[in-house]
Amino acid sequence: MTTGTPRDVLRRMFDAAVASALPSKCLPAHLPPPPKGRTIVIGAGKASAAMARAVEEHWPGELEGLVVTRYGHRVATDRIEIVEAAHPVPDLAGREAAERILKRVQGLSEDDLVLCLISGGGSSLLTLPAPGLTLQDKQAINRALLASGANITEMNCVRKHLSAIKGGRLAAAAAPAKVVTLTISDVPGDDPAVIASGPTIADRTTFADAVAILHKYRITEPAAVLQHLERAADETPKPGDPRLARCETHMIATPQMALEAAAAVAREAGYTPLILGNALEGESRDVAMVHSGIARQVRGFHQPVKAPCVLLSGGETTVTVRGKGRGGRNVEFLLALSVALDGLPGVYALAGDTDGIDGAEETAGAIVTPDTLARAAARGVDAKARLADNDGHGFFEALGDTVVTGPTLTNVNDFRAILIEA
Amino acid sequence: MTTGTPRDVLRRMFDAAVASALPSKCLPAHLPPPPKGRTIVIGAGKASAAMARAVEEHWPGELEGLVVTRYGHRVATDRIEIVEAAHPVPDLAGREAAERILKRVQGLSEDDLVLCLISGGGSSLLTLPAPGLTLQDKQAINRALLASGANITEMNCVRKHLSAIKGGRLAAAAAPAKVVTLTISDVPGDDPAVIASGPTIADRTTFADAVAILHKYRITEPAAVLQHLERAADETPKPGDPRLARCETHMIATPQMALEAAAAVAREAGYTPLILGNALEGESRDVAMVHSGIARQVRGFHQPVKAPCVLLSGGETTVTVRGKGRGGRNVEFLLALSVALDGLPGVYALAGDTDGIDGAEETAGAIVTPDTLARAAARGVDAKARLADNDGHGFFEALGDTVVTGPTLTNVNDFRAILIEA
Repeated sequence: MTTGTPRDVLRRMFDAAVASALPSKCLPAHLPPPPKGRTIVIGAGKASAAMARAVEEHWPGELEGLVVTRYGHRVATDRIEIVEAAHPVPDLAGREAAERILKRVQGLSEDDLVLCLISGGGSSLLTLPAPGLTLQDKQAINRALLASGANITEMNCVRKHLSAIKGGRLAAAAAPAKVVTLTISDVPGDDPAVIASGPTIADRTTFADAVAILHKYRITEPAAVLQHLERAADETPKPGDPRLARCETHMIATPQMALEAAAAVAREAGYTPLILGNALEGESRDVAMVHSGIARQVRGFHQPVKAPCVLLSGGETTVTVRGKGRGGRNVEFLLALSVALDGLPGVYALAGDTDGIDGAEETAGAIVTPDTLARAAARGVDAKARLADNDGHGFFEALGDTVVTGPTLTNVNDFRAILIEA
Repeated sequence: MTTGTPRDVLRRMFDAAVASALPSKCLPAHLPPPPKGRTIVIGAGKASAAMARAVEEHWPGELEGLVVTRYGHRVATDRIEIVEAAHPVPDLAGREAAERILKRVQGLSEDDLVLCLISGGGSSLLTLPAPGLTLQDKQAINRALLASGANITEMNCVRKHLSAIKGGRLAAAAAPAKVVTLTISDVPGDDPAVIASGPTIADRTTFADAVAILHKYRITEPAAVLQHLERAADETPKPGDPRLARCETHMIATPQMALEAAAAVAREAGYTPLILGNALEGESRDVAMVHSGIARQVRGFHQPVKAPCVLLSGGETTVTVRGKGRGGRNVEFLLALSVALDGLPGVYALAGDTDGIDGAEETAGAIVTPDTLARAAARGVDAKARLADNDGHGFFEALGDTVVTGPTLTNVNDFRAILIEA
């Protein structure tokens, strides 16, 4: 027996996924006991202001601090200062905030506690070039790396060795204070060394690795960057570094936790949840075709799971923009899904960005029903033409099927659910 | 407890999938009892010669007949004539064979049996333009439909109404004889009306539908085609047509049956099989990224199934060729998969075309192991560069990891298996 309409169940699953990542919900349980000494709250990321507020609301003692977040992501706080800065290209505001954060954790004692609040986007918000380097140097090398085909691990290795704050340096500066890092993950694998380039996490990579990466991709400029790396002064803290002995990290929200929260809603509503993956990648429309194929298998062969069921997946797909429509990863996925399902009875879907913003639109995502194509056709809206134009938002707005949450001020990446009736 | 090496288990699964579709294995059990009168064997498709031989070897009585297959797909037969013709663009040999097949089933009695052997490719091999139309007319309209963006259902509707043999017309011509159609499916959904355009299957579409489709896509040429469709003489047999009352159809091999055969091998070797879908579609490299994401979820979270397990899927992916390498859908999938898995321990994969030919190469597919990338790098072979060049065959040949079966003379589409150790 299932309860609730498919639309309701889908929306409740999405809301549960987002709620699992809201700092007000997920952060309090991870707060450590107050220290004998001072509590300094620092942090960076798109969720850092909301995280700071959650700390203020639940912290039993004194605290002070400073976090940096993206322009527009400020929330009201009493005691923790919020600085807004640019993302994804760093600006001076972020650089100044990073400098102040690094100063703030210096000179602490063993009795003090640093609470570090990290979330996606923290890498560009927390930018502090190593001595001798400029913001322009870092921007130039970032552009060169992006154009080279280097992967994210390689880029992070280089970045950590050009920074005064990343790759564990922030934690090293805070020693001998205890450092507790609370992290919201939006990256595949939830590696804390990757999120915001791990300012409080020991770094396994070296200056020599960074030089090898630039050689591999034949990057020879800016000269200041190469000189800095080749000089290899002041290596990042490595695992076992005594300065990081009193660091601990808690993942307080992840894509997987969001999917598990949605799965619990599904189960309660009588649908068997099947989590396919929390970090699926690929071109949105092709990922949609695979999901459609799995949904057809459920309808036709009760595989890989018997209906009533919900197929759940997370992770960030890609849209290769060819058209001129208003799109986003999630509405592109849904539009392609509705074309691939071609009105298959009993199959509904919701996809949305957990940050509440799918692409550039103030819309989180949308809902697909078995009659999506028929309702579109009745309104003279051609799904295939809209898909060719990457016009997912236009398509679902025309149907009144958008999902709007407003900016959620958190982010555990995309959420996709396909509900299949028995 | 699992038995056999991952490579062995993968290869045995693939072989079981192919074997399930070999006419010698799957056809005999579906043969009807011999009739009082004559037995006429006809058929079309890439597997029709192999199917004819299986009939000859197991048929207890007299028989005669004629089947048309693709150039190079002949096998030795004693009593059933094999004609080879062109695929996918029809030629005169196919046209003449179709004419002879249609004549062969005319004038039969209620005591006679027509055994119709259908497999993929039958549509272009069994080409007989309706009276007043030429092969050139049909070729022209095919080109126009392909360029228009019409889907396969729409194209088949038009084709059936330009043919003297498709859309149930062959069965109607055979009345009052009994018609038993044995079909090997290589299409999503296994709809017998779609495979070879259903020469023995009642047609739900009409001349008016065909005209509407040409209008929809603004196709106005050739004039002879439009006139033929608008005249609407001699409609295809519809469901309930008394001429088709003595027709029955058996699916003797399908992609699903092939996956189930592989699943049985997996189970016996101690791996839990999970069939994701028998008709997955999408760009090969993106389908690979989704499979990689699911494999990571198994390793990290025991979802959607607990290892040791095998993820199975079928259906035809797409390769958008941008490079100059030697590729095919299956090796492209595997090459992209190995890049996406990036050496993830405990994950092995095999993908192959069940017809034994992946793309233009005499190679069915290949095998991926956790050390595929490392072995490639040791040989100076760059996986990402080969993927960018669509050079899947070159890549796996360099590693000695190709899977070669030779042409299997059957086809239930692509086969993919990802084996994940506990």
